[in-house]
Amino acid sequence: MLIAKHQNTIDKAVTANHERTFYSQYPEHPKAYGEDAPQRGEAGFRDLLNKPFKRLRQQVVSGWAGEEASPYTGQPLGITYPLTDVDELVKAGKRSGQQWARQSVADRAGILTEALERIQHHFFEIAYATMHTTGQSYMMSFQASGPHANDRALEAVALGYQLLQHYPEKQSWEKPMGKISVKLEKQFRAVPRGVGVVIGCSTFPVWNSLPGIFADLITGNAVIVKPHPKAILPIAIAVAAIQDVLEENGQDPYTCQLAADTSAKPITKTLCENPGISLIDYTGGSAFGSYVESLATPSRVVFTEKAGVNSVILDSVKDVDAVMQNLAFSVSLYSGQMCTAPQNFFIPESGIATADGRLGFDETAARFTAAITALAGHPKMGAGTLGALQNETTLQRAKDAAKLGGKVLLSGTAVANEEFKDARTFSPTVLEVTAKDKEIFEKELFGPVVLLIKTKDTEESIRLAQQMAAGHGAITCAAYTTNEQVKEQIADAMNSVFTPVSFNFTGPIWVNQHAAFSDFHVTGGNPAGNASFTNQEFLLRRFVWVGNRTYVE
Amino acid sequence: MLIAKHQNTIDKAVTANHERTFYSQYPEHPKAYGEDAPQRGEAGFRDLLNKPFKRLRQQVVSGWAGEEASPYTGQPLGITYPLTDVDELVKAGKRSGQQWARQSVADRAGILTEALERIQHHFFEIAYATMHTTGQSYMMSFQASGPHANDRALEAVALGYQLLQHYPEKQSWEKPMGKISVKLEKQFRAVPRGVGVVIGCSTFPVWNSLPGIFADLITGNAVIVKPHPKAILPIAIAVAAIQDVLEENGQDPYTCQLAADTSAKPITKTLCENPGISLIDYTGGSAFGSYVESLATPSRVVFTEKAGVNSVILDSVKDVDAVMQNLAFSVSLYSGQMCTAPQNFFIPESGIATADGRLGFDETAARFTAAITALAGHPKMGAGTLGALQNETTLQRAKDAAKLGGKVLLSGTAVANEEFKDARTFSPTVLEVTAKDKEIFEKELFGPVVLLIKTKDTEESIRLAQQMAAGHGAITCAAYTTNEQVKEQIADAMNSVFTPVSFNFTGPIWVNQHAAFSDFHVTGGNPAGNASFTNQEFLLRRFVWVGNRTYVE
Repeated sequence: MLIAKHQNTIDKAVTANHERTFYSQYPEHPKAYGEDAPQRGEAGFRDLLNKPFKRLRQQVVSGWAGEEASPYTGQPLGITYPLTDVDELVKAGKRSGQQWARQSVADRAGILTEALERIQHHFFEIAYATMHTTGQSYMMSFQASGPHANDRALEAVALGYQLLQHYPEKQSWEKPMGKISVKLEKQFRAVPRGVGVVIGCSTFPVWNSLPGIFADLITGNAVIVKPHPKAILPIAIAVAAIQDVLEENGQDPYTCQLAADTSAKPITKTLCENPGISLIDYTGGSAFGSYVESLATPSRVVFTEKAGVNSVILDSVKDVDAVMQNLAFSVSLYSGQMCTAPQNFFIPESGIATADGRLGFDETAARFTAAITALAGHPKMGAGTLGALQNETTLQRAKDAAKLGGKVLLSGTAVANEEFKDARTFSPTVLEVTAKDKEIFEKELFGPVVLLIKTKDTEESIRLAQQMAAGHGAITCAAYTTNEQVKEQIADAMNSVFTPVSFNFTGPIWVNQHAAFSDFHVTGGNPAGNASFTNQEFLLRRFVWVGNRTYVE
Repeated sequence: MLIAKHQNTIDKAVTANHERTFYSQYPEHPKAYGEDAPQRGEAGFRDLLNKPFKRLRQQVVSGWAGEEASPYTGQPLGITYPLTDVDELVKAGKRSGQQWARQSVADRAGILTEALERIQHHFFEIAYATMHTTGQSYMMSFQASGPHANDRALEAVALGYQLLQHYPEKQSWEKPMGKISVKLEKQFRAVPRGVGVVIGCSTFPVWNSLPGIFADLITGNAVIVKPHPKAILPIAIAVAAIQDVLEENGQDPYTCQLAADTSAKPITKTLCENPGISLIDYTGGSAFGSYVESLATPSRVVFTEKAGVNSVILDSVKDVDAVMQNLAFSVSLYSGQMCTAPQNFFIPESGIATADGRLGFDETAARFTAAITALAGHPKMGAGTLGALQNETTLQRAKDAAKLGGKVLLSGTAVANEEFKDARTFSPTVLEVTAKDKEIFEKELFGPVVLLIKTKDTEESIRLAQQMAAGHGAITCAAYTTNEQVKEQIADAMNSVFTPVSFNFTGPIWVNQHAAFSDFHVTGGNPAGNASFTNQEFLLRRFVWVGNRTYVE
């Protein structure tokens, strides 16, 4: 156990979270990956293909199955995973959770930090696994499923470590009552809620799941990890690493179980509805997410990140090209398959103010589509930015986008990928619609589809963006204005519907990105989801403070 | 505005909460009530009878009504309250909330602390109002609706004051990227959720409502106070005082509105289901409470305190008479109409161990019923401890208790009240049942009804108490054991179902009591309710952290 060693990291993390301090002050990630780490990672990944995944320490298995296929090659990965009956998963979770709950917070934090270090040894393997299940580019696969996911997990561990020790374990209490006084010994216990389920998605199988997994674990709950059947491998590698570290530290590896299933025989509903499940974390579409939210009771807490319609409000800019390049990158990155990607661009019919005078709507639109075309067609940047589409449904939606209505300003097309000629690619389609076309823009069009909405003026842009966030949820909002008053107005309007605003982003920073230890990912206040990475509720609701009192004679 | 003056009080309160420190260190309540305060309070109360309640600063009124009657005299109070259409209440709440949300946390804390001081001037008036609506004794009416309620409200203000300032308002952020670095200015805003509703009950109209009211207000939300139609006056006096202080400080008095209604035309459901309502606090029966819980969405947060079945586990005692006197008081206090009152006494068939050897089940039961009889019949203590039954339903339930099944060990009877000959009184009925009679003891029997459940042994007692709490909720559990191992076993079992245990209480301290700034009231983890006075969630879930980012050139 490496508690003493990790204490410093955790304390720094706690401080960082508490202060929401400079990212640059956050301790640097170890650079010890080694020069040959990418090659070793790729070899490790290839070695896993076309055989059963045997790393898990789960012995109770009712069968083996797997259906992953690479969005880059179109070929099945051929990996099968152990299937376990839901009742067995819950039973093992309850048993292992009882032991886990008895560990001290410091011990749990130590073991979990060690688990994160262990996962780090697999970053490149996980990167290849992510790439060939989600369609993310190699670079994004490494970052999102590797250090960024571990950062978010460490954030959950750190905040849990802090909150679990908020009240003292013991306290003497005395009530003076004139000549006598009553004395009690009080004891405050942070009691874990029970067994948790973390439901993953097919696009961010590690980044979106690791915070919930580590939040469940630091607060003393056993966790059952239910990945999307099309993206199991990346998180399976992480779960196996966690299990290894648990067992090495004398814990039951069933404290963290993988619950693989298949599209033909899904187990998610049966698992979530099991009365033994006390916590559910969900990332994915809104319809299933709302079902999951309906399962909440006083004895079962649900955390969701669903879908939203993210807006861009264009009012006035300094450097229009810098803005358009930034936005073109935001909508192209992983082909719009990020929950943070912008979709609805609100632009006044009179266009936008620039340093060189007013730029009309059509010209603004033209600069934007030109920036997308330049990026998508760029021999070095294009394929690497777009990545691949995770599945055929998203591809079909992108192909059908031109039929949504409105004017097609840019038609999406397949983009050649030099390394993978069979990659499932499609560049962004850009449509022009009017402020009245709500039936088109009031829903999430997941994937590379962008709508430019012609509004009367910025007032109307703000009002519509606000309405969309309130009614249909929003995770991000980008706004461009050089007017301080308009800036304040946008902030007030969007914040009132619990949507954060990123102002005037240009250069190498994009609205899609939320930094661990500094940005909240999802606020939890609008229909895009009820939870936030990582606010205090994300940890607090996983355990219950219970106070015992003993009369002292 | 008295912010500087109050800052010290709030800081002390914050510290007290944070440390869960000695109650005795908590700053003493001002003793400035004055010698004539009780008389002035009674006169004030009498002056309110038989006329419209005109203190509220609410002008939009659709009618006047009132139906309160004193449980002590049986006579109607004759007070009418302004009725307001739900749409008007919500509209005014939204309007006033916008201004209130713009106040700084320090300003809100200052105004709210001043409001608590103003309420304090009405403590005796509120005491008489509480007595003649709820049936609480004079002493309990003063304590529960006066200082204890204000303590809980101050606790909410203090914790809110702390949590709302957890993240800095502004933060500079820099991401080093090799030769360049990206700079952002980050802003963190605690955005209030919107308009809250606080639904009161007929037995603790102030104590149970004030924490939610002040929690809504400190976090920047407007609040609509919906009292039980049979117990409006106590909280109406408090709301009027809050409105006075709001207006004196330049705020809109509609920030805190009273929403009176009648049994014939109840408005609670219409009010709660209004899409403009973002927060609901509820205290009352479980059936309506579960309906209220079903209204929760990502945009509407619900806090409930419903009913539970509270257990007493009797294993072994030092001084059996001291224990029985303590328990007799606990079940008699306000005639078992406290949500914390014990109902199910689990006693092994072999009886309990005492310092003088084993005391058989029958003898243990006899000592308990004798203690109740002595207390209820005590000329000075009896009527004052029992108070009166709030309503006829509770009286009828008490009268019918003998027909529930099992053996009647003690029959409840009317208890003479010297001061009020028409008081609605009934002493506790005690029944003996077996461990198999679950259909009798698995539900709350609100009022003066106690069940002694004969178990095989303490193991079975613990198992049944645990089952009841898990399945039907529990707010308290009292346990008596001189065996450290059994004590630990009881704590583990009951804590695992999120129920606190009070061990070996004798003397002037009872399981029914939960101290502000020191005890959690309800844990929020079992079916007795999803909220807790006052943990961090009770404040945190009333606002949403939203982070804005601005690119720095």
